[in-house]
Amino acid sequence: MVAQLDLLFSCAVFLGQIMDKNSKKELLDYLLHFVTEQKKEKIKQVIAQRTNHVTVVLEDVFQQHNASAVVRSAECFGVQDVHIIEKRNQFLPINSVAKGSAKWISFYKYDNTQTCLQTLKKKGYKIVATVPHKKSYALPQLPIEKKTALIFGTEATGLSDEAISLADEFVTIPMYGFTESFNVSVSVAICLYDITQRLRTSDIDWELSKNEILDISLAWAKKIVVNSQLLEKKFFEDKK
Amino acid sequence: MVAQLDLLFSCAVFLGQIMDKNSKKELLDYLLHFVTEQKKEKIKQVIAQRTNHVTVVLEDVFQQHNASAVVRSAECFGVQDVHIIEKRNQFLPINSVAKGSAKWISFYKYDNTQTCLQTLKKKGYKIVATVPHKKSYALPQLPIEKKTALIFGTEATGLSDEAISLADEFVTIPMYGFTESFNVSVSVAICLYDITQRLRTSDIDWELSKNEILDISLAWAKKIVVNSQLLEKKFFEDKK
Repeated sequence: MVAQLDLLFSCAVFLGQIMDKNSKKELLDYLLHFVTEQKKEKIKQVIAQRTNHVTVVLEDVFQQHNASAVVRSAECFGVQDVHIIEKRNQFLPINSVAKGSAKWISFYKYDNTQTCLQTLKKKGYKIVATVPHKKSYALPQLPIEKKTALIFGTEATGLSDEAISLADEFVTIPMYGFTESFNVSVSVAICLYDITQRLRTSDIDWELSKNEILDISLAWAKKIVVNSQLLEKKFFEDKK
Repeated sequence: MVAQLDLLFSCAVFLGQIMDKNSKKELLDYLLHFVTEQKKEKIKQVIAQRTNHVTVVLEDVFQQHNASAVVRSAECFGVQDVHIIEKRNQFLPINSVAKGSAKWISFYKYDNTQTCLQTLKKKGYKIVATVPHKKSYALPQLPIEKKTALIFGTEATGLSDEAISLADEFVTIPMYGFTESFNVSVSVAICLYDITQRLRTSDIDWELSKNEILDISLAWAKKIVVNSQLLEKKFFEDKK
């Protein structure tokens, strides 16, 4: 029932619990010695554009093409966190579609909808369900001042009743044809495009906090540096 | 070498060549007798929102999931025409992904890039290649006053040199991550979302012409009405 962090991030979290801020900074500096100037510059650029003001929740999305395309879109738009509710279906991005994007994203996995949405609410997110509803906002009019968690449902049956009952707001992408819904990966991409475009040109404080920047930079550095686990071990031994 | 219309529309085109405007109107009225009021209203609503001011060109897109999602997005955004260049790969939308959208779209097929793009230029379209280029516009800044044909390349190798050399302008979707491109179906959807949103709130004359509305309504009516071919035959016999 407890939210689990993806394995990719488990190490960073483990360190996060036992390391103070200064130790993290030192480890990051140490690891960055093994990174080219070009890559360092890229990390700096990307982290400055990262946000978790908006986040994506996927409830039981099972088509691997869709799951992979969602992760790729989130990474391209600078959206750091992706929350995965796995009930009947396991979330498995395919790298040929995700194009390596999964390693830069923080995944949070849950085995039920309520735990996921209540956890996000406690973190200050309003839950926005992407379904038609009598009180739906059209996407360009959705207020984005508050932290926003967009929840998308499975391809087969859409969002669960539970997700809908826990939603604070509803949003729909304006449609003008006979077809009444978009492919789920397309819906996610359009929502993230619209919201991140508006965020980046607003006065809203959408950037990551200094602590988040440190944690995520450290996690990325560990993935970029060859043999980072050995180097990390050496760093701690030298510190003793 | 000559542009071919998809089979779905061949009948409408054939009639277009031999039927005058009044006969088309009469046939449409006749067929609409067999359509429920609700469906008639839907046709009226959808056709009023249809546009070919912006159109999509797919150059050799081969992943069926992508092809299908593109057709569905075009239909949802009210974009009537989809142009398909089939060189090595055949374009085959899957209905489980396209959700029936293909029957409302006008497909134009070509066996090479030059014929397609020159045909569109003659019809007054500027060709906009969706690739990074030193002179690229960011999508929200792309001028859309002129008729715009957006060309998207294959998943494997992107747009051909020929397509790039024939392009009048270039556009990119702003990206902020490590990943340097979107899935092709996602790219199409974001471009169509941005451009159609801007068109619909502009003073640009983006609607279909009266003749286009008549031809497309007739083609749609034939697909909605059960046994429309028999009814059409009867209509022409009664007219003799």
